[in-house]
Amino acid sequence: MRLEQLRHTTPLIHNITNYVAMNSMANILLALGASPAMVHAREEVAEFASIAHALTINIGTLSADWLEAMQQAARSATQHGKPWVFDPVAVGATQYRQQAGRLLIAERPSVIRGNASEILALAQQASTGRGVDSTAASDAARDAASELARATGAVVAVTGEIDLVTDGKRLARIHGGHPMMPRVTTLGCSLTGVVAAFIATSEDTFLATCAALACYAEAGRIAGAASSGPGSFSSAFLDALYQLDAGSLPPVEITHVE
Amino acid sequence: MRLEQLRHTTPLIHNITNYVAMNSMANILLALGASPAMVHAREEVAEFASIAHALTINIGTLSADWLEAMQQAARSATQHGKPWVFDPVAVGATQYRQQAGRLLIAERPSVIRGNASEILALAQQASTGRGVDSTAASDAARDAASELARATGAVVAVTGEIDLVTDGKRLARIHGGHPMMPRVTTLGCSLTGVVAAFIATSEDTFLATCAALACYAEAGRIAGAASSGPGSFSSAFLDALYQLDAGSLPPVEITHVE
Amino acid sequence: MRLEQLRHTTPLIHNITNYVAMNSMANILLALGASPAMVHAREEVAEFASIAHALTINIGTLSADWLEAMQQAARSATQHGKPWVFDPVAVGATQYRQQAGRLLIAERPSVIRGNASEILALAQQASTGRGVDSTAASDAARDAASELARATGAVVAVTGEIDLVTDGKRLARIHGGHPMMPRVTTLGCSLTGVVAAFIATSEDTFLATCAALACYAEAGRIAGAASSGPGSFSSAFLDALYQLDAGSLPPVEITHVE
Repeated sequence: MRLEQLRHTTPLIHNITNYVAMNSMANILLALGASPAMVHAREEVAEFASIAHALTINIGTLSADWLEAMQQAARSATQHGKPWVFDPVAVGATQYRQQAGRLLIAERPSVIRGNASEILALAQQASTGRGVDSTAASDAARDAASELARATGAVVAVTGEIDLVTDGKRLARIHGGHPMMPRVTTLGCSLTGVVAAFIATSEDTFLATCAALACYAEAGRIAGAASSGPGSFSSAFLDALYQLDAGSLPPVEITHVE
Repeated sequence: MRLEQLRHTTPLIHNITNYVAMNSMANILLALGASPAMVHAREEVAEFASIAHALTINIGTLSADWLEAMQQAARSATQHGKPWVFDPVAVGATQYRQQAGRLLIAERPSVIRGNASEILALAQQASTGRGVDSTAASDAARDAASELARATGAVVAVTGEIDLVTDGKRLARIHGGHPMMPRVTTLGCSLTGVVAAFIATSEDTFLATCAALACYAEAGRIAGAASSGPGSFSSAFLDALYQLDAGSLPPVEITHVE
Repeated sequence: MRLEQLRHTTPLIHNITNYVAMNSMANILLALGASPAMVHAREEVAEFASIAHALTINIGTLSADWLEAMQQAARSATQHGKPWVFDPVAVGATQYRQQAGRLLIAERPSVIRGNASEILALAQQASTGRGVDSTAASDAARDAASELARATGAVVAVTGEIDLVTDGKRLARIHGGHPMMPRVTTLGCSLTGVVAAFIATSEDTFLATCAALACYAEAGRIAGAASSGPGSFSSAFLDALYQLDAGSLPPVEITHVE
């Protein structure tokens, strides 16, 4: 089982993430069984990315210095054969974020994880002009994810009420989670770290990403049943991740899209 | 009811706040029903402030780059008719903070929210030399708040055991809350975001600020009754904000000071 | 009792710490009864360090600007007779951190608190070439701590399953705590603040450091007994610190090493 493998390995996950997410993400990775480190100085990111088992980059609270460090870290990870996950927070919201998205996609992430509108925004940038069909929200996200996966070579995960994962050939849907999850800040950002921990300790990036999302959804379902608001949910969610039994996870539904 | 209006609108609140507060503030805004975003890069703050429904600026963990971004964001908010709330953390503590206070007051905040000593420090800066009567702590805060409101055109909220709100003409006192609140970090900073969420979705800034403080005090009262220390209080406070029933809020006492 | 003295004084603790730890550390200091402030701008750190009762410096999320501010703050603290605690997070991991460690040790911290590998890395830097005996992990940490204490004049605390504290002459072992503690992020970083709060309100830095660690271990033991995962542990830990009865702390075992 991938979760047991992760817990046995305790992978070191190097995160360049936003200020809001740092504490929650570190707690979520520790609860799961990984070892988080937040390191962003240009003086050391490349060296640290070569030591860690995987890297995550999140543009939530961006600035010029950090963007430069993100590019250096991503390049070092790729050079040293370490997988990295890109989290394009609000990538369509400002011109600066669109530019950051382009620069980081060029560093070839292993996985891109975002919500539907972020994946749509990236796919439109990456597409050769044909554009993305957006007649229906979920179809649009699926088509955008497939197109983005093919254009970049990354596994693309679109998370929301139902999660989609695709490598351009296979498509998985992960059900579960809980309606309280969007009322707790940075659960999406933290999931990016969980994806990194799974792909760092598994050979098939697509299946490892699916396993990460399935674990998260299951912990969300358990926490939701045990809480009465976002405060008690946060606490119960960490406990659920810590106690998660790899044997009891629901199966992931995978289809072939080509 | 203003709380129902807020929940219906889900206002996007742009926050340039201190590192300590970011996570708590985001969770508090989400629990209440608003949509928080933390964005501070000079490359994008002006653009983002024009998109959001309201802006907050908090000088808790200040630095030169951020102060510049704060000024740009505040200017953009004012230009685009978006209200903004200023939180002058420890404004009297160092010369640098005094200077930051002057620069940001000059950008004409809609609301200034601070504790008694912060409001006193700002009022002394804004006053024309007459000084602030400080014979008694609560009287001093009331007089300083009125003077600051008249000098700046902002609604001024002094939060503490009893909250005071004034626009220079009307004065409101909000009772409630709980003695555990000062033992949880950044509850004051986060309240600044809650004020922004209310004024973004209401026409009368003074009454909207009163409603924000009344909701916060009531959630504090509920959480205090259900907790045995600051850890359980934090969790119960988020749950209480999430579950808050707009119909059961205690009335706010308003007097006319002119 | 040192805890009662601390609560009576409510010392103002100036922290230049990493982004991950800030919120947790502030909450832990407030729960304990101290008053935390996070201030890092070069424009004000020296002034603020002269106002506060003690200073902490943590290199977890380092950058060039901050390192400069850390040096200025440490120098100001030393000049104004204020104690300061150094937390050398991952000091051996990159060349940049090794350099930061050397620069900050040169500013003469009152206490150095780290895990065994961090203290070993610092001791190797500080040693005159003889190296540190590393035949057994706990012996190595003890010898490194003593050597580092003698080389720097600081009290050295090595925290882990069993904590060691030494001033080069006396050696204390603090038992207790709980296995859940390493699964919650920044409990070590926050302990650095707790040490600062104790040494700010006590004359004997060695004994005050021991008292800080004993309180922390006891709160951990209480929280561990009341929780079922890292989420409920965090909440219970803050409640336990808040409720901690100074009279019920277990004794600290002290031996003389010279």
